[in-house]
Amino acid sequence: MEGQSVYLTQLVESLQMLPGVGKKSAQRLAYYIMKMPQQEAKRLSESISNVRNKVKECIVCSNFTENEKCPICMNEKRDKESICVVQEAKDIGVMERIGEYNGYYHVLKGVISPMEGIGPDELNIPSLLNRIREGKIKEVIVATNPNVEGEATAMYLAKLIRPLGAKVTRIAHGLPVGGDIEYADEVTLSRAMQGRMEI
Amino acid sequence: MEGQSVYLTQLVESLQMLPGVGKKSAQRLAYYIMKMPQQEAKRLSESISNVRNKVKECIVCSNFTENEKCPICMNEKRDKESICVVQEAKDIGVMERIGEYNGYYHVLKGVISPMEGIGPDELNIPSLLNRIREGKIKEVIVATNPNVEGEATAMYLAKLIRPLGAKVTRIAHGLPVGGDIEYADEVTLSRAMQGRMEI
Repeated sequence: MEGQSVYLTQLVESLQMLPGVGKKSAQRLAYYIMKMPQQEAKRLSESISNVRNKVKECIVCSNFTENEKCPICMNEKRDKESICVVQEAKDIGVMERIGEYNGYYHVLKGVISPMEGIGPDELNIPSLLNRIREGKIKEVIVATNPNVEGEATAMYLAKLIRPLGAKVTRIAHGLPVGGDIEYADEVTLSRAMQGRMEI
Repeated sequence: MEGQSVYLTQLVESLQMLPGVGKKSAQRLAYYIMKMPQQEAKRLSESISNVRNKVKECIVCSNFTENEKCPICMNEKRDKESICVVQEAKDIGVMERIGEYNGYYHVLKGVISPMEGIGPDELNIPSLLNRIREGKIKEVIVATNPNVEGEATAMYLAKLIRPLGAKVTRIAHGLPVGGDIEYADEVTLSRAMQGRMEI
C-alpha cells in the first residue's frame, strides 16, 4: 500500500499467512504490534523463532518438546498400561485440558487418506507397535477424528494391535453435550443409540 | 498446560496479547506456526522485530516510516495545498486505500478526551499549525472519528486553524453505503439530512 512503511507491509503479509487472518485483521494486528510495549513485541518475535528452532519431536510419542522426551513421557506417575493414539500433537493439548486421561500418548502424524495419497507407511505406526510390544500396554485408545479417515485408521490400527494382546478402544460417538436431538444428524444419532449405556 | 513444550506455551501466551486472539485461537495459531514452512516463520518473527526496531515516526506528519520522512511526505507530486488530519497513523492506510485523496496527512496521535485525561497539549497539534503557517495550505480536512471526542477535536482544531487562513473541512456524516434507512440511528439520519446535496 502506498504510504506505508515497507516493514509494516511485510509484517501484514506475514500475518496474513496465518489461518483465519485476512487482510484487514492483519493490518489491525500489525498496527497493534507497532504500539504494544517493546518487551511484549520482542517476546512475541522470539517465541516464534524459539518454537521453530528449539521445539522438536519427542523420541517416544512424537509430541512437541524442547527435550529428547516430552513432559508426559517423562512423567513416571502416569498409567503405564494405556496409550492414547491421536492424529496430531495438538490433540494432546485438547485431551490434557479435559483432565480425564492419565496414560501416555502416541502421535500418528496424520490419518490414512487414499484421497490425499497418505497410506499407513506415511504414519507413525511402527514405533507405536514397538511401544505396545515392549511395554505392558493393556489398552490402546484410538482418538482419531470421528470422520471417514479417522474411522478407517482406527480399524486399521485395531487389526494390527489386537494380535499383540492389547485391548483397542475407540472414543465414543454421540450427541455433543448441550446439543439438541432435533438438530442432530442421522448418523450421529444412530451412533448415539448404538453407544447407549445403562444409567 | 501439562504436556506442552515451554516454548509453545510462551508463544501461546504472547499471541494471546493480540487483540481478538483468545486462548483457543492462540493455541491454534501456535500449532500452525509450528508447522508452517521454516522460511515463513522466520519472516514473521523478523517482521515483528523489524517494525519495532526500524519503523519510526515521519518527522513531518508522524506517519510510520523507516526513513526520516514517510513515502507520502516524500512524494512531490501530491497536492501541496491540502492536509488531511487523522487520529492515528493507521487511518492513513484506510484513506489511501480508497484512493480519493491526493494531499498530505498529519497524524494527531489521539483526540481530545477529558474522560481519559487527554488535552490538546498531548496531541501533535503544534507541528500541524507550523505546517499550515509555513506552507501554502488552502484546506485542512479533519478526518477524526465521527464520535464525541472526534467532533470536539475537529471544532478545537478549526478554531486554531481558521485564523491562519486555511479552510477547515470535516468528512461527511451520513448513511453508510449499502445501509438501510429503516435501521439507521436517528443522529446519523439527521446528519444525513443536514448534509444532503443536490443531484
